[in-house]
Amino acid sequence: MKGYKAPLADMRFLLEQVFDAQNEWQQLPAFAEMADLETAVAVLEESAKLNEQVVAPLDRNADEQGVSFENGIVKTPDGFADAYGQFAEGGWIGLCGNPEFGGMGMPKSLGVLTDEIGYGASNAFQLYGSLTAGAALCINAHGSDELKEKFLPSLYSGAWTGAMDMTEPQAGSDLRGIRTKAEIQDNGSYKISGSKIFITSGDNDLGENVVHLVLAKIATDKGLSKNISLFLVPKILVNDDGSLGDANGVSVGSIEHKMGLKGSATCVMNYDDAEGYLIGQEGRGLAAMFTMMNYERVSIGIQGLGASEMAYQLAAEYAKERRQGVAADKSMRSGEFNDSLLVHGDVRRMLLNIRSLNEAGRAFAVHTGLQLDIANYGEGEAAEWAGAQVGLLTPLAKAFLTDRGLDSTVAGQQVFGGHGFIREWGAEQLVRDCRIAQIYEGTNGIQALDLLGRKVVANRGENMKRLLEQFSAETSAMTNVDAGHKDSVLTAFAELQGATAELVDAARNDANLVNCAAVDYLNAVGYTLFGYFWLRMCNVADEQADEQFASDKRLVTDYYVKRVMPLAAHHLRLISTGAGATMALELDRF
Amino acid sequence: MKGYKAPLADMRFLLEQVFDAQNEWQQLPAFAEMADLETAVAVLEESAKLNEQVVAPLDRNADEQGVSFENGIVKTPDGFADAYGQFAEGGWIGLCGNPEFGGMGMPKSLGVLTDEIGYGASNAFQLYGSLTAGAALCINAHGSDELKEKFLPSLYSGAWTGAMDMTEPQAGSDLRGIRTKAEIQDNGSYKISGSKIFITSGDNDLGENVVHLVLAKIATDKGLSKNISLFLVPKILVNDDGSLGDANGVSVGSIEHKMGLKGSATCVMNYDDAEGYLIGQEGRGLAAMFTMMNYERVSIGIQGLGASEMAYQLAAEYAKERRQGVAADKSMRSGEFNDSLLVHGDVRRMLLNIRSLNEAGRAFAVHTGLQLDIANYGEGEAAEWAGAQVGLLTPLAKAFLTDRGLDSTVAGQQVFGGHGFIREWGAEQLVRDCRIAQIYEGTNGIQALDLLGRKVVANRGENMKRLLEQFSAETSAMTNVDAGHKDSVLTAFAELQGATAELVDAARNDANLVNCAAVDYLNAVGYTLFGYFWLRMCNVADEQADEQFASDKRLVTDYYVKRVMPLAAHHLRLISTGAGATMALELDRF
Repeated sequence: MKGYKAPLADMRFLLEQVFDAQNEWQQLPAFAEMADLETAVAVLEESAKLNEQVVAPLDRNADEQGVSFENGIVKTPDGFADAYGQFAEGGWIGLCGNPEFGGMGMPKSLGVLTDEIGYGASNAFQLYGSLTAGAALCINAHGSDELKEKFLPSLYSGAWTGAMDMTEPQAGSDLRGIRTKAEIQDNGSYKISGSKIFITSGDNDLGENVVHLVLAKIATDKGLSKNISLFLVPKILVNDDGSLGDANGVSVGSIEHKMGLKGSATCVMNYDDAEGYLIGQEGRGLAAMFTMMNYERVSIGIQGLGASEMAYQLAAEYAKERRQGVAADKSMRSGEFNDSLLVHGDVRRMLLNIRSLNEAGRAFAVHTGLQLDIANYGEGEAAEWAGAQVGLLTPLAKAFLTDRGLDSTVAGQQVFGGHGFIREWGAEQLVRDCRIAQIYEGTNGIQALDLLGRKVVANRGENMKRLLEQFSAETSAMTNVDAGHKDSVLTAFAELQGATAELVDAARNDANLVNCAAVDYLNAVGYTLFGYFWLRMCNVADEQADEQFASDKRLVTDYYVKRVMPLAAHHLRLISTGAGATMALELDRF
Repeated sequence: MKGYKAPLADMRFLLEQVFDAQNEWQQLPAFAEMADLETAVAVLEESAKLNEQVVAPLDRNADEQGVSFENGIVKTPDGFADAYGQFAEGGWIGLCGNPEFGGMGMPKSLGVLTDEIGYGASNAFQLYGSLTAGAALCINAHGSDELKEKFLPSLYSGAWTGAMDMTEPQAGSDLRGIRTKAEIQDNGSYKISGSKIFITSGDNDLGENVVHLVLAKIATDKGLSKNISLFLVPKILVNDDGSLGDANGVSVGSIEHKMGLKGSATCVMNYDDAEGYLIGQEGRGLAAMFTMMNYERVSIGIQGLGASEMAYQLAAEYAKERRQGVAADKSMRSGEFNDSLLVHGDVRRMLLNIRSLNEAGRAFAVHTGLQLDIANYGEGEAAEWAGAQVGLLTPLAKAFLTDRGLDSTVAGQQVFGGHGFIREWGAEQLVRDCRIAQIYEGTNGIQALDLLGRKVVANRGENMKRLLEQFSAETSAMTNVDAGHKDSVLTAFAELQGATAELVDAARNDANLVNCAAVDYLNAVGYTLFGYFWLRMCNVADEQADEQFASDKRLVTDYYVKRVMPLAAHHLRLISTGAGATMALELDRF
């Protein structure tokens, strides 16, 4: 089995030719001094080295061995702690963190690529660092100066890890119902009591402390307040000088036994009068948490992409080497007893489906990262519009990339035939590992509701209209793409715009429409935008010195536009049927 | 967690109203005396009782415990041996077997339903009996009288189990390359030597002997013969009086560690000068094996259906009981803090996708079973046409039902949110268990090639044209269906017929077309036929005394025609793009 190889050439092409990232970064004062193409490429190469050589080889065993929980102690799979130490030492946890507190201050448009490399090497391992970075991001955005000073340096350094504690047994997709209680103390801190489930990296042996961000309701005279607040609750209390103090009232109830991602510790967390510190304002916990969630959702989207890239690499390698059957097309026959699987159209179909989604997905991720950078570090109207784009693109990144991640890992597994079902080959692990990405950080159904309900319908379709017009105009202006492809993408944009306008209208008179149409809408947007990103890559592919690289881009564009993008029209067709057929059956007839 | 419940009302409806099965059976002398509706319903009820009460409760543990292999001994999960004993005692293994040798001689159109009940209760457990029945079928069709007398009674009685041994490391989808050797002995038997992988139920502790059907090549002076022969190779030799004799040269090399179906023993089998007996003619082994394969492929299709039905039941139950969020539609609000998941359109969408596929799939399975019955036990032109239909329907049953099985189990898992990823809830096990059904017994890509290449293009589209015309005519004649639905299905038939004719033409000039279009073609046929089966059910649903049952059928028909069937048109659209985009990339650029 070949190991994971980071797709560095494609990543460089995106930063350099497609997005002219250096120029974008130079316009943002936060990055002007440190982020240039040369640095970015060096960062990617180092990330590739560490993930290919240190992390990827641990991934198969991590699935078999899993996480153990004995006598209250969580132990990660062999090698994880050592590998995490190397990550910490290299400064990777704080790559996009605030330099004031020890972060490296690099742009997210670069971070999405190192995220992909990490997930490609190991879904389970990458998650530990990703959640730590997310927790730091939230503390940096909403915590007091005191909390930042006390906690950020050790999170960025990798000495401590982070976790976000939201779900409770009775409160999952709907957090209104959480019951974890926060009681204010004389010193301004809070006593936190309650129980949380599904807490990724809730405990581990990678760092010396775990910093939990916990959603809870503040106790009042009349019971729990209605609104939710956010608290920082360390596993071990931290002294004023930053050293570790007494254990806090934080314990692991159990670890979950899961379908996959077995190297990641998913914990039931118990809080018994644990000391916690308010982050942001009372009752504004969800808003604060969503700062983290937006980044985390993009990151989880990239889990789907990373798994899908690894699925492609494994399956393409297998297909090259495995010889079964003889080419239907005589001109492709090797003359030997068997030809490579790659002569068979159906095997190519599976591989090209995966690849055409991966490369467009990578471009989409860099675009989304750039908008996050501009929204957070830019100014004025540009930052505002980037922020509006982030609103549209975040649920799309989370749901579309992970749904396609499952499609791709399943297709990759299928290329292996019987070996695809056998654990030692690794193809089936990718299916199991990335399956959770469609569920956690807000199920993909919730993402679709966020996109269509909150970001499109509640906005009267204005931001989406602007986005589609902008991308359509860019597409029209492209000079180096196939005219037929351009027509196809422009038509897709026009149909999507028409459907959006109709939905915004029709949703006024049909309370169920958004809920019934949301997933189809998200898919229609995703498949359409991927068409645009393919053309955008095609349009500049010739600028690459490698002519074969440019030729590949053109051929895969052709495949995508003809054989994948038509799903956008299919989903629009389903939307046009309205909500009636979905809502008609009585509840008790299911 | 609610247990599995066999969908007996729907099954009875299919046999009684939709297919008038009693009348069909009465016309076949083999069944005229024993198969009537009352008997069939009693059989289904007994099957339900045994599977619901004895088998289903073993399934979750079977996944966790798996099969063990120690000191050469394969041990199935706790309870399997005892449950299998009850199956054997009830005569279930020989339900559709030849009465002359101890089978019960029931029609396959009933057997597909008991298969579904078995797979619904436990994918892993059902497989043991299914392979045994398949092996018996092959011996009955092609074995000598001596072999039949010696082996069939003990297979039908459940005393011995059966296995089919085809795959070798270098020969999977392409069996030409198998190397297992058969050397003829003076007494007319053969010495078999070689190794086989992926052998389902290759060994087990359920019966006293394992009867292997092994593909091998006969040794000649010039090496192995080119053609493949089929041999019966028992694990333990059988004396002339039917008692067990010495061990044969058959051993288990190892068991496979799989993604799922962990209760099923998947073995590497080694043959060292094992005694074997030719089944059928020398060099005609594949043809003989395919007698078994055709039944087995339909059965494996039904594995997908059974898993999908269980996925629906689990998810619908969870959705009813789980309360999250508040209905968007005020008229659906319960007034409590949370409403049931069933008020949310997106949850309904997932459930209705599954259900609309399951009920059509069940009708499709019974239709296929009936054609198998008529083909095997009928006469003249009717039997011939049924046989031609079986040719078309078998790859479809295998691939379409299992592909939809994965879609459905994944959707069912998604309804559970986070709990869907946790093993104890059972939803994720269904995904892992049914995933293999897309791969084994010929991958679904191979099934699609069989359908489009061998059954359609090589037949110049004639049988498919006849099938579509017959179903179109029946649809046109329906008097109790929605006119819009009827139009939609007739249009789908017409488009499919047009695409078929074009493909048959175009395939002459493009060697790659069949391979590139096959999976899309199979899907287009599947989604279209399911539309027809929905209308066929709708048309007679009023004959059911239960008015609510009829109303459900109409509403789910509406859902299917509007929101699922359009995938047929989508797949036809992909076919129309030809093979160019798929074949363009050079082999070394993957």
